[in-house]
Amino acid sequence: MKVYGDKISGNCLKVKYTADHLGLPYTWVDVDIMAGGAKTPEFLSKNPQGQVPYVELDGGRVLAQSNAIIRYLAKDSPLLPTDNYLQAKVDEWLFWEQYSHEPYIAVNRFQMKYLGKTRHELESWRVERGEQALRFMDKHLQANPWLVESGISVADIALLAYTRLCHEGGFTLDTTPNVAGWVGRCEKTLGISGP
Amino acid sequence: MKVYGDKISGNCLKVKYTADHLGLPYTWVDVDIMAGGAKTPEFLSKNPQGQVPYVELDGGRVLAQSNAIIRYLAKDSPLLPTDNYLQAKVDEWLFWEQYSHEPYIAVNRFQMKYLGKTRHELESWRVERGEQALRFMDKHLQANPWLVESGISVADIALLAYTRLCHEGGFTLDTTPNVAGWVGRCEKTLGISGP
Repeated sequence: MKVYGDKISGNCLKVKYTADHLGLPYTWVDVDIMAGGAKTPEFLSKNPQGQVPYVELDGGRVLAQSNAIIRYLAKDSPLLPTDNYLQAKVDEWLFWEQYSHEPYIAVNRFQMKYLGKTRHELESWRVERGEQALRFMDKHLQANPWLVESGISVADIALLAYTRLCHEGGFTLDTTPNVAGWVGRCEKTLGISGP
Repeated sequence: MKVYGDKISGNCLKVKYTADHLGLPYTWVDVDIMAGGAKTPEFLSKNPQGQVPYVELDGGRVLAQSNAIIRYLAKDSPLLPTDNYLQAKVDEWLFWEQYSHEPYIAVNRFQMKYLGKTRHELESWRVERGEQALRFMDKHLQANPWLVESGISVADIALLAYTRLCHEGGFTLDTTPNVAGWVGRCEKTLGISGP
């Protein structure tokens, strides 16, 4: 498998975390998104969505969308429960991440860290919704060690990727201690350290 | 099964379309989202996300997020291919819908139809990204009758819900004839008519 990604992107790191934890062999192909690497004709011929990550599976078949990729890689592994309902609860978090978390937590990080905006230049509605997302996670994690009751899953990996870097987008975990504790548990279990 | 939803919401209609097509028995419970029906303490105690749709399955277990719900309902039906890779391609579209289609096509519709904004009051970046989403679908549908090669699936249902109503958000399918043709095919196959 080839993983096309840029390590500044949490969406790409989700794929790395999943493959590393499951011991899946892969070749990482660096795509420099800031230099337009995901918009070249060659790139678009393989992934017309013009986004990273995407993976080229053995046999040449291609798959895009970080959460679709990690769900596919986790099939028949401990990172995806076999029970249909619990699998759907994983999906619930994966869709929630893309709609109610990433557009705020990840976008604000991108704007501050890569576009050089200050906290005061961020859109206030994105700040509010990001804080709301963290509070929502915190409430759930107060009574649950992992997002889904079966144990650590791709739902945790999907949410971890940008949550652990949220300070780079002006957010803090000081007021959401359950999220902070969960980040630590995830990092320890997955063997992730550093920025 | 009980489906909690509001029929002004395409996300809720996805669940109706799927259950109706598969002949799954359910009771529809109307939630008036404009009157704050998804924010009452009673509602939040069942679905803390404070959103419709959500379903209460037989046995009382609860599931939220439209795309997680329809994927769950479609399990072991013709609306979800059994092949792992094709299933992941369905997921690819489901995640794309939530991130790159719904926030533009559905949000602009909501702002015009339910908040009374005019076309000129819409945010121009949302208009542009909505048009971009329709063009992306059009290109794919030029060579494919359905979004995933195995046939009509929950990917088509997820994208259909708001695409067929996109004119209510100021968009047109006149310049994306492949999308227009696909909407007609979906509606015919699923037996959907009217607004």
